[in-house]
Amino acid sequence: MTTRSSTDATRVIPEATVARLPVYLRALTALADSGIRTCSSEDLATAAGVNSAKLRKDLSYLGSYGTRGVGYDVDYLRYQIAREIGVTQDWPVVIVGIGNLGHALANYSGFRSRGFRVVALLDADPALVGQTVAGVVVRPFDDLEEIVREHDVAIGVIATPAFAAQDVADRMVAIGITSILNFAPAVVAVPEGVDVRKVDLSIELQILAYHEQRKANGADPTNADGGAA
Amino acid sequence: MTTRSSTDATRVIPEATVARLPVYLRALTALADSGIRTCSSEDLATAAGVNSAKLRKDLSYLGSYGTRGVGYDVDYLRYQIAREIGVTQDWPVVIVGIGNLGHALANYSGFRSRGFRVVALLDADPALVGQTVAGVVVRPFDDLEEIVREHDVAIGVIATPAFAAQDVADRMVAIGITSILNFAPAVVAVPEGVDVRKVDLSIELQILAYHEQRKANGADPTNADGGAA
Repeated sequence: MTTRSSTDATRVIPEATVARLPVYLRALTALADSGIRTCSSEDLATAAGVNSAKLRKDLSYLGSYGTRGVGYDVDYLRYQIAREIGVTQDWPVVIVGIGNLGHALANYSGFRSRGFRVVALLDADPALVGQTVAGVVVRPFDDLEEIVREHDVAIGVIATPAFAAQDVADRMVAIGITSILNFAPAVVAVPEGVDVRKVDLSIELQILAYHEQRKANGADPTNADGGAA
Repeated sequence: MTTRSSTDATRVIPEATVARLPVYLRALTALADSGIRTCSSEDLATAAGVNSAKLRKDLSYLGSYGTRGVGYDVDYLRYQIAREIGVTQDWPVVIVGIGNLGHALANYSGFRSRGFRVVALLDADPALVGQTVAGVVVRPFDDLEEIVREHDVAIGVIATPAFAAQDVADRMVAIGITSILNFAPAVVAVPEGVDVRKVDLSIELQILAYHEQRKANGADPTNADGGAA
Protein backbone atom coordinates (compact mmCIF):
# COMPACT_ATOMS: atom_id res chain seq x y z
CA MET A 1 0.00 0.00 0.00
CA THR A 2 1.46 3.34 -1.02
CA THR A 3 0.84 6.55 0.85
CA ARG A 4 1.10 10.03 -0.53
CA SER A 5 0.92 13.20 1.48
CA SER A 6 -2.51 14.80 1.58
CA THR A 7 -0.82 18.20 1.63
CA ASP A 8 0.52 17.68 -1.88
CA ALA A 9 -1.30 20.74 -3.10
CA THR A 10 -0.41 20.24 -6.76
CA ARG A 11 -2.60 17.18 -7.18
CA VAL A 12 -6.00 17.85 -8.63
CA ILE A 13 -8.71 15.33 -7.88
CA PRO A 14 -11.63 15.43 -10.33
CA GLU A 15 -14.79 16.92 -8.84
CA ALA A 16 -16.78 13.73 -9.52
CA THR A 17 -14.21 11.76 -7.52
CA VAL A 18 -14.39 14.28 -4.67
CA ALA A 19 -18.17 13.78 -4.59
CA ARG A 20 -17.72 10.00 -4.29
CA LEU A 21 -15.13 10.07 -1.49
CA PRO A 22 -17.77 10.63 1.25
CA VAL A 23 -19.74 7.71 -0.21
CA TYR A 24 -16.69 5.45 0.05
CA LEU A 25 -16.10 6.70 3.58
CA ARG A 26 -19.68 5.84 4.53
CA ALA A 27 -19.37 2.36 2.97
CA LEU A 28 -16.06 1.73 4.77
CA THR A 29 -17.57 2.84 8.07
CA ALA A 30 -20.42 0.37 7.56
CA LEU A 31 -17.90 -2.42 6.79
CA ALA A 32 -15.84 -1.53 9.87
CA ASP A 33 -19.00 -1.49 12.00
CA SER A 34 -19.68 -5.03 10.79
CA GLY A 35 -16.23 -6.09 12.00
CA ILE A 36 -14.71 -6.36 8.52
CA ARG A 37 -10.97 -5.55 8.50
CA THR A 38 -10.00 -5.97 4.84
CA CYS A 39 -12.05 -5.79 1.67
CA SER A 40 -11.56 -6.27 -2.05
CA SER A 41 -12.23 -3.42 -4.45
CA GLU A 42 -15.29 -5.39 -5.61
CA ASP A 43 -16.69 -5.60 -2.06
CA LEU A 44 -16.18 -1.92 -1.49
CA ALA A 45 -17.52 -0.99 -4.93
CA THR A 46 -20.68 -2.99 -4.26
CA ALA A 47 -21.13 -1.40 -0.83
CA ALA A 48 -20.68 2.05 -2.36
CA GLY A 49 -22.84 1.38 -5.42
CA VAL A 50 -20.19 2.07 -8.09
CA ASN A 51 -18.30 -0.22 -10.41
CA SER A 52 -14.97 -1.50 -9.20
CA ALA A 53 -12.91 -0.04 -12.06
CA LYS A 54 -14.17 3.44 -11.16
CA LEU A 55 -13.48 2.81 -7.49
CA ARG A 56 -9.89 1.74 -8.17
CA LYS A 57 -9.37 4.77 -10.40
CA ASP A 58 -10.81 7.11 -7.73
CA LEU A 59 -8.62 5.63 -5.00
CA SER A 60 -5.54 5.86 -7.22
CA TYR A 61 -5.83 9.67 -6.92
CA LEU A 62 -5.22 9.19 -3.21
CA GLY A 63 -2.21 7.00 -3.93
CA SER A 64 -4.13 4.07 -2.51
CA TYR A 65 -3.84 0.85 -4.48
CA GLY A 66 -4.57 -1.90 -1.97
CA THR A 67 -2.45 -5.03 -1.70
CA ARG A 68 -2.65 -7.71 -4.37
CA GLY A 69 -4.53 -10.77 -3.09
CA VAL A 70 -5.47 -9.02 0.16
CA GLY A 71 -7.34 -5.90 -0.89
CA TYR A 72 -7.70 -2.76 1.16
CA ASP A 73 -7.16 -2.39 4.88
CA VAL A 74 -10.54 -0.94 5.91
CA ASP A 75 -9.34 1.24 8.78
CA TYR A 76 -6.33 2.58 6.95
CA LEU A 77 -8.34 3.41 3.84
CA ARG A 78 -10.94 5.16 6.02
CA TYR A 79 -8.15 7.24 7.49
CA GLN A 80 -6.68 8.05 4.06
CA ILE A 81 -10.04 9.17 2.67
CA ALA A 82 -10.99 11.12 5.80
CA ARG A 83 -7.64 12.90 5.67
CA GLU A 84 -8.06 13.64 1.97
CA ILE A 85 -11.53 15.11 2.50
CA GLY A 86 -10.24 16.99 5.49
CA VAL A 87 -12.54 15.46 8.09
CA THR A 88 -9.78 14.17 10.33
CA GLN A 89 -9.72 17.73 11.59
CA ASP A 90 -12.61 19.28 13.46
CA TRP A 91 -14.78 21.69 11.44
CA PRO A 92 -16.74 24.24 13.44
CA VAL A 93 -20.10 24.87 11.78
CA VAL A 94 -22.91 27.34 12.45
CA ILE A 95 -26.54 26.66 11.57
CA VAL A 96 -28.76 29.65 10.83
CA GLY A 97 -32.52 29.10 10.94
CA ILE A 98 -33.77 26.90 13.78
CA GLY A 99 -37.17 25.87 12.45
CA ASN A 100 -37.98 22.18 12.06
CA LEU A 101 -35.17 21.60 9.58
CA GLY A 102 -32.62 23.50 11.70
CA HIS A 103 -33.75 21.46 14.72
CA ALA A 104 -33.35 18.24 12.76
CA LEU A 105 -29.89 19.27 11.51
CA ALA A 106 -28.78 20.29 15.01
CA ASN A 107 -29.77 16.82 16.22
CA TYR A 108 -28.31 15.01 13.22
CA SER A 109 -25.73 12.56 14.55
CA GLY A 110 -24.13 12.21 11.12
CA PHE A 111 -22.51 15.66 11.35
CA ARG A 112 -20.78 15.03 14.66
CA SER A 113 -19.56 11.59 13.64
CA ARG A 114 -18.08 13.02 10.41
CA GLY A 115 -15.92 15.72 11.96
CA PHE A 116 -18.41 18.60 11.97
CA ARG A 117 -19.07 20.33 15.28
CA VAL A 118 -22.08 22.61 15.52
CA VAL A 119 -20.70 25.52 17.56
CA ALA A 120 -23.75 27.74 17.31
CA LEU A 121 -27.42 27.83 16.37
CA LEU A 122 -28.74 31.22 15.29
CA ASP A 123 -32.18 32.55 14.55
CA ALA A 124 -33.65 35.98 13.93
CA ASP A 125 -36.83 35.08 15.83
CA PRO A 126 -36.65 36.35 19.45
CA ALA A 127 -39.10 33.60 20.46
CA LEU A 128 -36.50 30.95 19.59
CA VAL A 129 -33.48 32.71 21.07
CA GLY A 130 -32.51 31.24 24.43
CA GLN A 131 -34.10 27.85 23.76
CA THR A 132 -31.79 24.84 24.03
CA VAL A 133 -31.69 22.57 20.97
CA ALA A 134 -29.45 19.50 20.93
CA GLY A 135 -27.63 20.89 23.94
CA VAL A 136 -26.86 24.24 22.30
CA VAL A 137 -28.56 27.53 23.25
CA VAL A 138 -30.05 29.36 20.25
CA ARG A 139 -28.50 32.83 19.86
CA PRO A 140 -29.65 35.92 17.97
CA PHE A 141 -28.64 36.06 14.30
CA ASP A 142 -26.82 39.33 15.05
CA ASP A 143 -24.26 37.37 17.09
CA LEU A 144 -23.04 35.70 13.88
CA GLU A 145 -19.92 37.83 13.50
CA GLU A 146 -18.80 37.36 17.10
CA ILE A 147 -19.33 33.59 16.93
CA VAL A 148 -17.54 33.18 13.60
CA ARG A 149 -14.51 35.08 14.91
CA GLU A 150 -14.46 33.27 18.24
CA HIS A 151 -14.63 29.75 16.74
CA ASP A 152 -12.90 30.46 13.43
CA VAL A 153 -15.93 29.12 11.55
CA ALA A 154 -15.42 28.50 7.83
CA ILE A 155 -18.65 26.64 7.05
CA GLY A 156 -22.17 27.99 7.45
CA VAL A 157 -25.43 26.08 7.06
CA ILE A 158 -28.56 27.94 5.93
CA ALA A 159 -31.83 26.34 7.08
CA THR A 160 -34.03 29.44 6.87
CA PRO A 161 -37.15 29.95 4.75
CA ALA A 162 -36.42 30.81 1.13
CA PHE A 163 -36.98 34.57 1.50
CA ALA A 164 -34.22 34.94 4.12
CA ALA A 165 -31.54 32.81 2.45
CA GLN A 166 -29.80 35.49 0.36
CA ASP A 167 -29.56 37.91 3.30
CA VAL A 168 -28.06 35.23 5.49
CA ALA A 169 -25.58 34.25 2.77
CA ASP A 170 -24.55 37.89 2.31
CA ARG A 171 -23.91 38.29 6.04
CA MET A 172 -21.96 35.03 6.15
CA VAL A 173 -19.77 36.06 3.23
CA ALA A 174 -19.23 39.58 4.65
CA ILE A 175 -17.68 38.15 7.82
CA GLY A 176 -15.45 35.65 6.08
CA ILE A 177 -17.36 32.38 5.77
CA THR A 178 -16.13 30.73 2.57
CA SER A 179 -18.31 27.60 2.36
CA ILE A 180 -22.09 27.55 2.58
CA LEU A 181 -24.43 24.58 2.67
CA ASN A 182 -27.84 25.83 1.58
CA PHE A 183 -30.93 23.86 2.60
CA ALA A 184 -33.29 26.75 1.84
CA PRO A 185 -35.38 26.27 -1.32
CA ALA A 186 -33.77 29.31 -2.96
CA VAL A 187 -30.79 30.05 -5.16
CA VAL A 188 -28.21 32.21 -3.39
CA ALA A 189 -25.54 34.22 -5.22
CA VAL A 190 -22.08 34.55 -3.70
CA PRO A 191 -18.80 36.07 -4.90
CA GLU A 192 -15.91 34.13 -6.48
CA GLY A 193 -13.97 32.06 -4.00
CA VAL A 194 -16.99 31.15 -1.90
CA ASP A 195 -18.38 27.64 -2.36
CA VAL A 196 -22.09 27.03 -2.09
CA ARG A 197 -23.68 23.62 -2.23
CA LYS A 198 -27.42 23.25 -2.31
CA VAL A 199 -29.13 20.23 -0.85
CA ASP A 200 -32.16 19.08 -2.79
CA LEU A 201 -33.99 16.54 -0.67
CA SER A 202 -36.14 15.49 -3.64
CA ILE A 203 -33.29 14.13 -5.78
CA GLU A 204 -33.16 10.73 -4.11
CA LEU A 205 -36.95 10.53 -4.34
CA GLN A 206 -36.74 11.16 -8.08
CA ILE A 207 -34.22 8.34 -8.48
CA LEU A 208 -36.64 6.02 -6.66
CA ALA A 209 -39.48 7.21 -8.91
CA TYR A 210 -37.44 6.32 -11.99
CA HIS A 211 -37.08 2.73 -10.78
CA GLU A 212 -40.71 2.53 -9.65
CA GLN A 213 -41.80 3.55 -13.12
CA ARG A 214 -39.57 0.90 -14.67
CA LYS A 215 -40.93 -1.72 -12.27
CA ALA A 216 -44.49 -0.71 -13.16
CA ASN A 217 -43.55 -1.15 -16.84
CA GLY A 218 -42.09 -4.56 -16.08
CA ALA A 219 -38.65 -3.40 -17.15
CA ASP A 220 -36.82 -3.18 -13.85
CA PRO A 221 -37.33 -6.52 -12.13
CA THR A 222 -34.00 -6.45 -10.37
CA ASN A 223 -32.97 -4.06 -7.72
CA ALA A 224 -30.52 -1.67 -9.34
CA ASP A 225 -29.52 -0.01 -6.08
CA GLY A 226 -28.78 -3.00 -3.95
CA GLY A 227 -31.04 -4.44 -1.33
CA ALA A 228 -29.78 -2.52 1.68
CA ALA A 229 -28.91 1.09 2.34
CA MET B 1 -34.68 17.21 -31.98
CA THR B 2 -35.43 13.49 -31.90
CA THR B 3 -37.91 11.95 -29.53
CA ARG B 4 -37.99 8.38 -28.37
CA SER B 5 -40.76 6.81 -26.37
CA SER B 6 -40.11 6.70 -22.65
CA THR B 7 -41.99 3.42 -22.51
CA ASP B 8 -39.31 1.72 -24.59
CA ALA B 9 -38.65 -0.75 -21.79
CA THR B 10 -35.66 -2.36 -23.49
CA ARG B 11 -33.44 0.68 -23.12
CA VAL B 12 -31.15 0.60 -20.13
CA ILE B 13 -29.94 3.92 -18.81
CA PRO B 14 -26.78 3.66 -16.71
CA GLU B 15 -27.38 4.23 -13.00
CA ALA B 16 -24.95 7.17 -12.92
CA THR B 17 -26.97 8.86 -15.67
CA VAL B 18 -30.22 8.21 -13.78
CA ALA B 19 -28.69 9.92 -10.75
CA ARG B 20 -27.83 12.99 -12.85
CA LEU B 21 -31.25 13.37 -14.50
CA PRO B 22 -32.79 15.10 -11.43
CA VAL B 23 -29.79 17.46 -11.37
CA TYR B 24 -30.41 18.39 -15.03
CA LEU B 25 -34.09 18.83 -14.26
CA ARG B 26 -33.27 21.20 -11.41
CA ALA B 27 -30.86 23.19 -13.60
CA LEU B 28 -33.43 23.42 -16.41
CA THR B 29 -36.09 24.59 -13.96
CA ALA B 30 -33.73 27.32 -12.76
CA LEU B 31 -33.07 28.38 -16.38
CA ALA B 32 -36.80 28.41 -17.15
CA ASP B 33 -37.46 30.45 -13.99
CA SER B 34 -34.94 33.00 -15.30
CA GLY B 35 -36.93 33.28 -18.54
CA ILE B 36 -34.41 31.32 -20.64
CA ARG B 37 -36.09 29.41 -23.48
CA THR B 38 -33.16 27.69 -25.23
CA CYS B 39 -29.72 26.74 -23.97
CA SER B 40 -26.54 25.22 -25.33
CA SER B 41 -25.20 21.99 -23.89
CA GLU B 42 -22.37 24.08 -22.41
CA ASP B 43 -24.83 26.40 -20.60
CA LEU B 44 -26.77 23.49 -19.20
CA ALA B 45 -23.61 21.58 -18.28
CA THR B 46 -22.31 24.59 -16.36
CA ALA B 47 -25.64 25.06 -14.57
CA ALA B 48 -25.68 21.37 -13.63
CA GLY B 49 -22.00 21.20 -12.66
CA VAL B 50 -20.94 18.50 -15.14
CA ASN B 51 -18.85 18.64 -18.30
CA SER B 52 -20.73 19.12 -21.53
CA ALA B 53 -19.54 15.89 -23.18
CA LYS B 54 -21.03 13.91 -20.30
CA LEU B 55 -24.23 15.93 -20.49
CA ARG B 56 -24.62 15.24 -24.21
CA LYS B 57 -23.93 11.55 -23.66
CA ASP B 58 -26.48 11.39 -20.82
CA LEU B 59 -29.16 13.14 -22.87
CA SER B 60 -28.49 10.87 -25.84
CA TYR B 61 -29.93 8.00 -23.75
CA LEU B 62 -33.20 9.93 -23.79
CA GLY B 63 -32.95 10.36 -27.55
CA SER B 64 -32.48 14.07 -26.99
CA TYR B 65 -29.77 15.66 -29.13
CA GLY B 66 -30.73 19.34 -29.30
CA THR B 67 -30.71 21.29 -32.56
CA ARG B 68 -27.39 22.28 -34.14
CA GLY B 69 -26.75 26.02 -33.71
CA VAL B 70 -29.80 26.44 -31.46
CA GLY B 71 -29.24 24.04 -28.59
CA TYR B 72 -31.95 22.58 -26.42
CA ASP B 73 -35.48 23.83 -25.98
CA VAL B 74 -35.58 24.28 -22.20
CA ASP B 75 -39.26 23.45 -21.67
CA TYR B 76 -39.27 20.48 -23.99
CA LEU B 77 -36.12 19.01 -22.46
CA ARG B 78 -37.63 19.48 -18.98
CA TYR B 79 -40.65 17.55 -20.13
CA GLN B 80 -38.52 14.78 -21.66
CA ILE B 81 -36.44 14.35 -18.52
CA ALA B 82 -39.44 14.55 -16.18
CA ARG B 83 -41.20 11.91 -18.26
CA GLU B 84 -38.11 9.70 -18.25
CA ILE B 85 -37.76 9.94 -14.47
CA GLY B 86 -41.47 9.38 -14.11
CA VAL B 87 -42.31 12.64 -12.34
CA THR B 88 -44.84 13.81 -14.91
CA GLN B 89 -47.14 11.49 -13.01
CA ASP B 90 -48.18 12.08 -9.42
CA TRP B 91 -46.45 9.90 -6.82
CA PRO B 92 -48.29 9.41 -3.55
CA VAL B 93 -45.81 9.25 -0.68
CA VAL B 94 -46.16 8.49 3.03
CA ILE B 95 -43.81 9.85 5.67
CA VAL B 96 -43.32 7.81 8.84
CA GLY B 97 -41.82 9.59 11.85
CA ILE B 98 -43.04 13.12 12.45
CA GLY B 99 -40.27 14.48 14.62
CA ASN B 100 -38.39 17.60 13.53
CA LEU B 101 -37.13 15.97 10.35
CA GLY B 102 -40.54 14.55 9.46
CA HIS B 103 -42.03 18.00 10.06
CA ALA B 104 -39.41 19.57 7.82
CA LEU B 105 -39.99 16.99 5.10
CA ALA B 106 -43.78 17.43 5.28
CA ASN B 107 -43.27 21.15 4.75
CA TYR B 108 -40.61 20.75 2.05
CA SER B 109 -41.90 22.48 -1.05
CA GLY B 110 -39.42 20.63 -3.27
CA PHE B 111 -41.40 17.38 -3.00
CA ARG B 112 -44.68 18.86 -4.13
CA SER B 113 -43.10 20.77 -7.01
CA ARG B 114 -41.36 17.59 -8.24
CA GLY B 115 -44.43 15.39 -8.52
CA PHE B 116 -44.48 13.90 -5.03
CA ARG B 117 -47.66 14.25 -3.01
CA VAL B 118 -47.53 13.51 0.69
CA VAL B 119 -50.78 11.63 1.27
CA ALA B 120 -50.17 10.72 4.89
CA LEU B 121 -48.01 11.43 7.91
CA LEU B 122 -47.71 8.61 10.43
CA ASP B 123 -46.23 8.33 13.89
CA ALA B 124 -46.30 5.73 16.62
CA ASP B 125 -46.42 8.44 19.32
CA PRO B 126 -50.04 9.03 20.47
CA ALA B 127 -49.06 12.58 21.48
CA LEU B 128 -48.40 13.46 17.83
CA VAL B 129 -51.42 11.69 16.34
CA GLY B 130 -54.18 14.14 15.47
CA GLN B 131 -51.85 17.14 15.12
CA THR B 132 -51.94 18.93 11.78
CA VAL B 133 -48.58 19.32 10.02
CA ALA B 134 -48.34 21.04 6.65
CA GLY B 135 -52.11 20.71 6.33
CA VAL B 136 -52.11 16.95 6.92
CA VAL B 137 -53.39 15.28 10.09
CA VAL B 138 -50.87 12.89 11.67
CA ARG B 139 -52.28 9.36 11.88
CA PRO B 140 -51.27 6.33 13.94
CA PHE B 141 -48.55 4.17 12.42
CA ASP B 142 -50.96 1.23 12.52
CA ASP B 143 -53.04 2.92 9.80
CA LEU B 144 -50.18 2.38 7.34
CA GLU B 145 -51.73 -0.60 5.57
CA GLU B 146 -55.11 1.10 5.09
CA ILE B 147 -53.49 4.27 3.74
CA VAL B 148 -51.15 2.44 1.37
CA ARG B 149 -54.07 0.49 -0.11
CA GLU B 150 -56.35 3.51 -0.34
CA HIS B 151 -53.80 5.74 -2.13
CA ASP B 152 -51.83 3.03 -3.95
CA VAL B 153 -48.63 4.26 -2.32
CA ALA B 154 -45.41 2.85 -3.78
CA ILE B 155 -42.88 5.10 -2.01
CA GLY B 156 -42.36 5.36 1.72
CA VAL B 157 -40.14 7.83 3.57
CA ILE B 158 -38.61 6.85 6.92
CA ALA B 159 -37.83 9.79 9.21
CA THR B 160 -37.86 7.92 12.51
CA PRO B 161 -35.02 7.57 15.01
CA ALA B 162 -32.45 4.92 14.10
CA PHE B 163 -33.84 2.23 16.41
CA ALA B 164 -37.26 2.21 14.71
CA ALA B 165 -36.12 2.24 11.08
CA GLN B 166 -35.87 -1.50 10.42
CA ASP B 167 -39.31 -2.19 11.93
CA VAL B 168 -40.88 0.53 9.81
CA ALA B 169 -39.14 -0.77 6.68
CA ASP B 170 -40.36 -4.32 7.41
CA ARG B 171 -43.94 -3.12 7.77
CA MET B 172 -43.69 -1.07 4.58
CA VAL B 173 -42.34 -4.02 2.61
CA ALA B 174 -44.95 -6.40 4.06
CA ILE B 175 -47.80 -4.28 2.69
CA GLY B 176 -46.29 -3.81 -0.74
CA ILE B 177 -44.21 -0.63 -0.70
CA THR B 178 -41.35 -1.20 -3.15
CA SER B 179 -39.29 2.00 -2.77
CA ILE B 180 -38.04 3.43 0.50
CA LEU B 181 -36.23 6.68 1.15
CA ASN B 182 -34.42 6.30 4.46
CA PHE B 183 -33.46 9.43 6.41
CA ALA B 184 -32.90 7.52 9.64
CA PRO B 185 -29.23 7.13 10.59
CA ALA B 186 -29.45 3.34 10.31
CA VAL B 187 -28.91 0.70 7.65
CA VAL B 188 -32.14 -1.12 6.79
CA ALA B 189 -32.25 -4.51 5.08
CA VAL B 190 -34.99 -5.24 2.53
CA PRO B 191 -35.70 -8.16 0.20
CA GLU B 192 -34.78 -8.29 -3.51
CA GLY B 193 -36.95 -6.10 -5.66
CA VAL B 194 -37.32 -3.34 -3.07
CA ASP B 195 -35.22 -0.22 -3.62
CA VAL B 196 -33.84 1.67 -0.64
CA ARG B 197 -31.97 4.93 -0.89
CA LYS B 198 -30.35 6.45 2.14
CA VAL B 199 -29.97 10.18 2.49
CA ASP B 200 -26.76 11.24 4.21
CA LEU B 201 -27.03 14.93 5.01
CA SER B 202 -23.33 15.13 5.80
CA ILE B 203 -22.10 14.25 2.30
CA GLU B 204 -22.42 17.77 0.92
CA LEU B 205 -20.74 19.11 4.04
CA GLN B 206 -17.81 16.76 3.43
CA ILE B 207 -17.46 18.03 -0.14
CA LEU B 208 -17.32 21.59 1.21
CA ALA B 209 -14.72 20.52 3.77
CA TYR B 210 -12.54 19.13 0.99
CA HIS B 211 -12.52 22.49 -0.77
CA GLU B 212 -12.05 24.40 2.48
CA GLN B 213 -8.98 22.32 3.24
CA ARG B 214 -7.61 23.02 -0.25
CA LYS B 215 -8.27 26.74 0.18
CA ALA B 216 -6.50 26.69 3.54
CA ASN B 217 -3.53 25.04 1.82
CA GLY B 218 -3.58 27.71 -0.89
CA ALA B 219 -4.37 25.11 -3.53
CA ASP B 220 -7.98 25.86 -4.35
CA PRO B 221 -8.16 29.57 -5.16
CA THR B 222 -10.98 29.20 -7.64
CA ASN B 223 -14.44 28.12 -6.90
CA ALA B 224 -14.77 24.61 -8.21
CA ASP B 225 -18.50 24.42 -7.67
CA GLY B 226 -19.63 27.63 -9.29
CA GLY B 227 -20.55 30.80 -7.49
CA ALA B 228 -24.27 30.21 -7.07
CA ALA B 229 -26.36 27.26 -6.02
